[in-house]
Amino acid sequence: MALSTQPYKGARDFYPADKRILQYLFDIMIKTVESYGYEAYDAPLLEPIELYTAKTSDEIVNEQTYSFTDHGGRQVVIRPEMTPSVSRMVAAKRQELPYPLRWYSIPNVWRYERPQRGRLREHWQLNVDLFGVEGLEAEHEMISVVDSLLRAYGADRSMYSIRLNSRKLMDLLMHEYFGLDETQSYTIGKLIDRMHKIETAEFIAQADIVFTPQQRDAGQSSKLFELLSLTSLDQLPEQLHTNPVCMNLQKLMAMLEQSGITNVQFDPTIMRGFDYYTDIVFEVIDTNPDNNRSMLGGGRYDSLIGLFGVDPVPTIGFGAGDVTLQNFLVSHDLLPHLSPKTDVYVILVGDVFTSAQPIIKHFRDEGVNVAVDSTGRKAEKQIRTADKAGIPAVIFIGDTEIVSQQLTLKHLASGDEQTHSIDRLISIIKDSRHP
Amino acid sequence: MALSTQPYKGARDFYPADKRILQYLFDIMIKTVESYGYEAYDAPLLEPIELYTAKTSDEIVNEQTYSFTDHGGRQVVIRPEMTPSVSRMVAAKRQELPYPLRWYSIPNVWRYERPQRGRLREHWQLNVDLFGVEGLEAEHEMISVVDSLLRAYGADRSMYSIRLNSRKLMDLLMHEYFGLDETQSYTIGKLIDRMHKIETAEFIAQADIVFTPQQRDAGQSSKLFELLSLTSLDQLPEQLHTNPVCMNLQKLMAMLEQSGITNVQFDPTIMRGFDYYTDIVFEVIDTNPDNNRSMLGGGRYDSLIGLFGVDPVPTIGFGAGDVTLQNFLVSHDLLPHLSPKTDVYVILVGDVFTSAQPIIKHFRDEGVNVAVDSTGRKAEKQIRTADKAGIPAVIFIGDTEIVSQQLTLKHLASGDEQTHSIDRLISIIKDSRHP
Repeated sequence: MALSTQPYKGARDFYPADKRILQYLFDIMIKTVESYGYEAYDAPLLEPIELYTAKTSDEIVNEQTYSFTDHGGRQVVIRPEMTPSVSRMVAAKRQELPYPLRWYSIPNVWRYERPQRGRLREHWQLNVDLFGVEGLEAEHEMISVVDSLLRAYGADRSMYSIRLNSRKLMDLLMHEYFGLDETQSYTIGKLIDRMHKIETAEFIAQADIVFTPQQRDAGQSSKLFELLSLTSLDQLPEQLHTNPVCMNLQKLMAMLEQSGITNVQFDPTIMRGFDYYTDIVFEVIDTNPDNNRSMLGGGRYDSLIGLFGVDPVPTIGFGAGDVTLQNFLVSHDLLPHLSPKTDVYVILVGDVFTSAQPIIKHFRDEGVNVAVDSTGRKAEKQIRTADKAGIPAVIFIGDTEIVSQQLTLKHLASGDEQTHSIDRLISIIKDSRHP
Repeated sequence: MALSTQPYKGARDFYPADKRILQYLFDIMIKTVESYGYEAYDAPLLEPIELYTAKTSDEIVNEQTYSFTDHGGRQVVIRPEMTPSVSRMVAAKRQELPYPLRWYSIPNVWRYERPQRGRLREHWQLNVDLFGVEGLEAEHEMISVVDSLLRAYGADRSMYSIRLNSRKLMDLLMHEYFGLDETQSYTIGKLIDRMHKIETAEFIAQADIVFTPQQRDAGQSSKLFELLSLTSLDQLPEQLHTNPVCMNLQKLMAMLEQSGITNVQFDPTIMRGFDYYTDIVFEVIDTNPDNNRSMLGGGRYDSLIGLFGVDPVPTIGFGAGDVTLQNFLVSHDLLPHLSPKTDVYVILVGDVFTSAQPIIKHFRDEGVNVAVDSTGRKAEKQIRTADKAGIPAVIFIGDTEIVSQQLTLKHLASGDEQTHSIDRLISIIKDSRHP
């Protein structure tokens, strides 16, 4: 029986045209974060399961990730995210590393779930982390990086909304305003995290289960729902306005505004799934009604590194996946046309494979990317292959060209031909490249 | 109990200095293969197990790879190599793709084995494949790419030896010269593949087990061993000299020599582990006696794509792993010093975080990579951080600088300072970068 040509469910094959898009996403990520002084790192794809069970239950890890037992009886996980790995690495060299430490990576990560729009089993995720800055300068920088990144793709600020919240503020609301204990707060937090996926009535019904009968009778669920629809810090109960947690958020918004980042909004529904966040969290939402979803997010997690038995390090970071980012760019028509990297297709005329090599080598040595057909088929068929591959031009090399050292370059889109010396053609080809 | 900071056994953490080396290896790979017209592709990390069991036993796949059952009961494998994946992708679009097709990828691959020098459980592997060329032009190109790659790292041809063999020639020798049947040939092939890891006596003893008593009595094992020590096609039994298989190898060596690739040698011990090779195979050996090992290899595999129920495509490819490549570069002192990508570290003097932003933004917009300390510590401490991080220079920004728009750049290695306008400094910084 013939083997299947299908990729594994929820994962993608990247043919050259797909890979060019992925590489374009990566190139802009790299350029942007490096302009802020971030340095690339990487970590293994497999990690011991303890790295993930430390902050959540074994059950959740086993259900939602690709975990298995290796031949040595060790339970391992294909990383579902990069934060535990980078924390482990920083903790391992806690004393030697220079702080503030700016690190980024673009790993592939895997999660076990039913594939759906914007969520696949394998995706690539830019991870940007700043270690060692306690003050709001860190939050300001992290959100500036996000803003610079989206603008580098050609987006303007009307296309995305930056939503801010604070875990500390939410704790305050839960404990002091609603009088919930820690377990109740945790469960309500998880409920808020998925509130955009469920109906209002269901949200209230589920919140009611968490509240005590007294709280329920006092209509706390509806009050919670109202509070979650606030869009400005000013709308919060007045006793909170002078609370340092609120003032901190307010100050950050002012700092961002001064830097021209005006599309920032308080959003108490932003919880972020992971338990490790300790204070300010943020997400970026596509404003296009057809793709009105969160496309990236992050926050401060000051205590994760302490789990490795070393002194904690104040840390803030964000992650941006390739799938949601690409959906955003497509939804705003921002994805450019990307050509193959090959500049020229060489068509050999006659038995010149060996004698043409010095010319071909000359092109390559000068930085021109040259594919040689090498099949000996008719010239027409060779031209058709170049065209199908998206290569913009062909060059013919036969005995005449080898003697004269004058070559003809044919642009496939226009059909125009020009005959020049090799060095002249090299300049022409380099000048005609997309920027 | 504190979590361990150790990475998974046989896998590596890449701190920025390590990642820079990896990225340097990748950059030269990409530049070289793209100069030959190869286009990047990618495939999922997980593949169905059938993709690997088709050409070998379930047992071997289970023993030597990371295979497991997913929650849906499907047996999957973390790819141990890329060739089955790329064959699957080409087969899936067999009719639509333009041939010759030139593809490359640099995936991470995993194999389950005891980690040792040059062999880790996770490594990165450049994969280069040319689909659709039947003639020796394909072999010539593939070996030229390998040669260009190593030379692009600064190697000269005395540092490596390119070893050629042919599976067809070996079959011929086994069947016609030694009179072995197919099963015997296969077993002897596997034995040759690991002959460099065992003693001569053990090789002969193991070969004796495969031979019949008559063959054994005729001293075939010793004859085989002698034959395997040949270093030139001329030394082969004379009846083979005019055989097309031999003449083909001879012709390829002449073509390579005409292109200046003179460090090529016939080596009948080159078998390559994988069963899918059909004809010419090759490996590149480090000539440094301290690291005298194979560092990359490949060959022709014309029938793999046919396993997917489509017409076969003549194919040739090679793989080059980062670990063996790095060992080669280190063994010849070819690894350059690599600096961080960050050009400048900004030290803020006084309460100027917000007012300094436009200047910092200007540097970034002009392509200068700028990290800002943002901790408010003493300037000395900030300078020490920059130095520790390997960032070559610092810039001080305080109220005076913001008013005058004249900044002082301090080079940390020399201690030299220069004060200029922002645009002048941008030029100076860009000019001082390593090429």
